[in-house]
Amino acid sequence: MNFAEKLAHAIKKNNSLLCVGLDPDFDKLPESIKQSAEPLFEFNRAIIDATAESVCSFKPNSAFYEAGGEKGIAQLQKTCDYIRETYPDIVIILDFKRGDIGNTNAYYAEFAFNELKVDGITIHPYMGRDANEPYLDYKDKGIFVLCRTSNPGAGEFQDLEVGGKKLYEVVAKRVSAEWNQNGNCHLVVGATYPKELAEIRAIVGDEITFLAPGIGAQGGDVEQAVQAGKNSKGEGLVFNTSRAVLYASSGSDFAEAARKKANELNNEINKYR
Amino acid sequence: MNFAEKLAHAIKKNNSLLCVGLDPDFDKLPESIKQSAEPLFEFNRAIIDATAESVCSFKPNSAFYEAGGEKGIAQLQKTCDYIRETYPDIVIILDFKRGDIGNTNAYYAEFAFNELKVDGITIHPYMGRDANEPYLDYKDKGIFVLCRTSNPGAGEFQDLEVGGKKLYEVVAKRVSAEWNQNGNCHLVVGATYPKELAEIRAIVGDEITFLAPGIGAQGGDVEQAVQAGKNSKGEGLVFNTSRAVLYASSGSDFAEAARKKANELNNEINKYR
Repeated sequence: MNFAEKLAHAIKKNNSLLCVGLDPDFDKLPESIKQSAEPLFEFNRAIIDATAESVCSFKPNSAFYEAGGEKGIAQLQKTCDYIRETYPDIVIILDFKRGDIGNTNAYYAEFAFNELKVDGITIHPYMGRDANEPYLDYKDKGIFVLCRTSNPGAGEFQDLEVGGKKLYEVVAKRVSAEWNQNGNCHLVVGATYPKELAEIRAIVGDEITFLAPGIGAQGGDVEQAVQAGKNSKGEGLVFNTSRAVLYASSGSDFAEAARKKANELNNEINKYR
Repeated sequence: MNFAEKLAHAIKKNNSLLCVGLDPDFDKLPESIKQSAEPLFEFNRAIIDATAESVCSFKPNSAFYEAGGEKGIAQLQKTCDYIRETYPDIVIILDFKRGDIGNTNAYYAEFAFNELKVDGITIHPYMGRDANEPYLDYKDKGIFVLCRTSNPGAGEFQDLEVGGKKLYEVVAKRVSAEWNQNGNCHLVVGATYPKELAEIRAIVGDEITFLAPGIGAQGGDVEQAVQAGKNSKGEGLVFNTSRAVLYASSGSDFAEAARKKANELNNEINKYR
């Protein structure tokens, strides 16, 4: 099963376009978890078990594990193994936003696809297609290229006008039309920018999935984002939320609170599909 | 001592603008090293000891360690510790080309500056200044922003015309004029593109250092790159080479061959300053 097929299966099975971002911040973890030898993994496991029925994807963010050095990376590996073994239908997207020359990208791809064995990754477009070919060559994986990001200052370069188009439109066009020879390219488009979601959907058609961070702590409006970003089948979107679910409660009921929040967000998204 | 001062001191002490990239590829390591429990670190240590007198900087590339999971990261940490403790004058630049939202970049910065304790890093410009502020806030560190990269297809987006300028020129201008409030911003400009090195030097003036990969395996011409990229003091450049030095010999004399190659490259660069 390739990435698109696995994602479609997960979306159908759990009736969900929701992705929970696994960005465990040690300082924000419940006291009981902080005592554990592997606090990031223990926290993730509880969150995963609580929310698995409401999501199509989990998205660990590499930064939060790297910050802990080798011990952090070991817990990232355990987190990916746990999802794959316990919830094999759910798609794992490693959010690591890499981008280097080809010789180096081959090693990042090795880390993601052969060590962690994730289904998808995020990458930067800036260095161009030739540099990113080592990722694109993984035909059965999902390659999410940053297009219009969710942060307030995203437009500094992404909105620059290039021959009557915005830079992010040029990225969307090139990735969907030229980088996508293996049908494995997708885009990162912030849920905080509905106008841009709609413009990019018009450019790329139905087959490209948008990984859309920004609902939850970043304040994106769910109704507007779904209406603007969905494809003709009411899909083509994976909405990521991290902090709103992970820290729904700071007490010992954090997992139950996360379950409730993920379920609510999933229902809200589905209302507008 | 801030980054610029430390780099200037290292350049003067070793009369060198050369940086050796520590990108150890297990498959290419000498047989004797492959047997070691920590082959990446053991290889690096031999390369570091052999070349330290000819360089101003070492540049470990995160990808080559991540590919080995937690064991790889442990060897990256040991490599950085070894350089800092044994050759404290030499600048360590972590080449990790990160770029995410601010909340996440804060964790990557934690990894680089507080875990590994490196002096400088490389980052992507695409998400804009607001996202990259957690890096820029480290006043005493060196932040190298990708501007015009060394790969053959670098121009796909970087050469797009924006209001009569190329995108890389806009990046150079904004980073040097607006991101650089703490005087800690520098640029990555491929040594494979002398014309662009000269154009960018004209835009940014004397104070910005170019990390210039591409001499050695990527084929950049040393004379042209030095002439085009140097500032008015014959400095402002750190030339990185990795494979040409690391694998100068595949036999048991690899360290001696690396020493010779680094010394040659340093002398060649100095000829044109």
